[in-house]
Amino acid sequence: MSEYVAIVAGGSGTRLWPLSRSTRPKQLLPLLGDRSLIQSTVDRVRPLVPPERILIVTEASHSDDLRAQLPEIPAENVLVEPVRRGTAAAIGLAATWIAHHDPSAVMASLWSDAAVMDDDGFRAALVAAFAVARSGDWLVTLGMRPTSPHTGMGYIQVGLEIGTFEGHLAHQVVRFVEKPDRATAEQFVRDGYVWNPGMFAWRVDVILAEFARLLPTIYGPLSEVSKSLGTAQQNQALRALYPLLPTETIDYGILERADRIATIPSSFGWSDVGSWAEILAISPKDDHGNVVRGQHFGLETSDTLIHGSGKPVFTLGVEDLVIVDLPDALLVCHRDHAERVKQLVEQLQADARWAGLL
Amino acid sequence: MSEYVAIVAGGSGTRLWPLSRSTRPKQLLPLLGDRSLIQSTVDRVRPLVPPERILIVTEASHSDDLRAQLPEIPAENVLVEPVRRGTAAAIGLAATWIAHHDPSAVMASLWSDAAVMDDDGFRAALVAAFAVARSGDWLVTLGMRPTSPHTGMGYIQVGLEIGTFEGHLAHQVVRFVEKPDRATAEQFVRDGYVWNPGMFAWRVDVILAEFARLLPTIYGPLSEVSKSLGTAQQNQALRALYPLLPTETIDYGILERADRIATIPSSFGWSDVGSWAEILAISPKDDHGNVVRGQHFGLETSDTLIHGSGKPVFTLGVEDLVIVDLPDALLVCHRDHAERVKQLVEQLQADARWAGLL
Repeated sequence: MSEYVAIVAGGSGTRLWPLSRSTRPKQLLPLLGDRSLIQSTVDRVRPLVPPERILIVTEASHSDDLRAQLPEIPAENVLVEPVRRGTAAAIGLAATWIAHHDPSAVMASLWSDAAVMDDDGFRAALVAAFAVARSGDWLVTLGMRPTSPHTGMGYIQVGLEIGTFEGHLAHQVVRFVEKPDRATAEQFVRDGYVWNPGMFAWRVDVILAEFARLLPTIYGPLSEVSKSLGTAQQNQALRALYPLLPTETIDYGILERADRIATIPSSFGWSDVGSWAEILAISPKDDHGNVVRGQHFGLETSDTLIHGSGKPVFTLGVEDLVIVDLPDALLVCHRDHAERVKQLVEQLQADARWAGLL
Repeated sequence: MSEYVAIVAGGSGTRLWPLSRSTRPKQLLPLLGDRSLIQSTVDRVRPLVPPERILIVTEASHSDDLRAQLPEIPAENVLVEPVRRGTAAAIGLAATWIAHHDPSAVMASLWSDAAVMDDDGFRAALVAAFAVARSGDWLVTLGMRPTSPHTGMGYIQVGLEIGTFEGHLAHQVVRFVEKPDRATAEQFVRDGYVWNPGMFAWRVDVILAEFARLLPTIYGPLSEVSKSLGTAQQNQALRALYPLLPTETIDYGILERADRIATIPSSFGWSDVGSWAEILAISPKDDHGNVVRGQHFGLETSDTLIHGSGKPVFTLGVEDLVIVDLPDALLVCHRDHAERVKQLVEQLQADARWAGLL
């Protein structure tokens, strides 16, 4: 029962515009240090799993940049989706590839564009998740103990204890709830619900059996793809069959409908790096609460994120701002409005004038 | 008694950094439209005075740019100070040059870097000031009726009426007061004091007599310079004699010490264009109170000045900001802190790293 890790590179991250673009998605950006989010994700699992057992699922338009960022990952371990068909198809493809190599494997599925503060804590939880998965037919999801009643999160209602695995208590999952309203979120926090960061572990035979049962229209074509994996026909088969798959999420397609779901409540510090405000919140700060990239000189400047690129940024008497200065666009945004960058980008998409910036 | 206008181009305008630089002073910048402040100043007096009777006093480092901006001004009407010696010397030089051409002239002295909202009202007041000056030995200063108890202004205490000139009441000046504190400024406004924008009119023989009496160390060398004006020795004489002059202001050196000062209280809308906040205050605005130069797209953006240069600026959830985006520097400043740009620049001057930006 070898352990594999699949890293699914999805999402364009429009809320991190103008740094993230359709051609330069969030996971390829070094938003929290010198390494990109996907590089950090690989770095984080490397102490547990060798590169040959790390698999990347990505879409075609970024695959060259991604390979350049991850030279240690074997070329055959980068699977390119010919089109996007949602997270169920992407994770199903990963499970199919892993099962082809090792039908008795356990696998973890991670997103490429999240951040973890405590890498050791993350690995300890992942080792426990592997142990739960190995013990039977559980679909395991890591649960994050909430640090706030965040309304943008998916929540997990935690049920009966299953047992202790590698020092971690595993529980049954009662149900998943997507993005609650504020009052509900506050009640969830009081009731011990955990956030669902979408980090999973399971035996590949177990997850593929669930695909066969719950998503047969995905399972069928992927079984066909499986026959060509590792052959000269692999990409041709993907191009022919993948577009036939229905677009579905792993959450709705499998997890919310499966019976034996386990969770390991954890506290290793996780972020979806979902907005400039989130980057400001989780990054190391100077004495005035500022997060600075590039040259900056300020007077009376606090709690502000400054992302320069080449030329210096000067600030005076400002607080709670996000300033992203790029060669072709400047964004100045109040941190409390950072979630609305997505809305700004949607409005820009409606005007041909800005096409070159998206 | 021909009328002349001297426009004195002084001051570096560090409070409008990063647009204004030591090599690109405020008066040469088109801060309020397509014409620079000095071009607008010339445009404003042209209906009253032909170019041959408009004189510019400037310092050497900007004289080429200035000539290029003002092709209608004859070359011999641009006097270049070899060094800066304050406003008394500059205005004394102008009076000397005008007296050399026409000893019976009346002259006005204006700064090159102020703005006027109502050009017709300004010209009407200037015509009245010329009339007061022509009537005798008054030193006339235009007074601006205050629109606020501004603490950054010089104030004039208005005294007895002298008479009505070209429809304008002229008054004696009781005294000048520099930059009062807030409570004093409020009292001044209640007591009918006016602001002193430094716009003067007088007969050249009258002002030169005051120089001889009050500033003989300026009058003496300028009398020597006068002998060479219009000859091949003019610039050589200026270079030899001008550095000998003491540095003094016209306000302290002459006006505060002279006896017969008149003022014409006026309301033509005047601004010293002294800060980015002032530009925001006096410029035409869009429906959200924003002043925009260049490409801009914003959501929930109000009362903000955006000065772009080439690339677009995007704003979200911000108010009361000044954003000046130039190819080599970006400034983001709260409008209430705009006066402190000067202080920011002073701090930058202490660090060799920023030398190229000043």
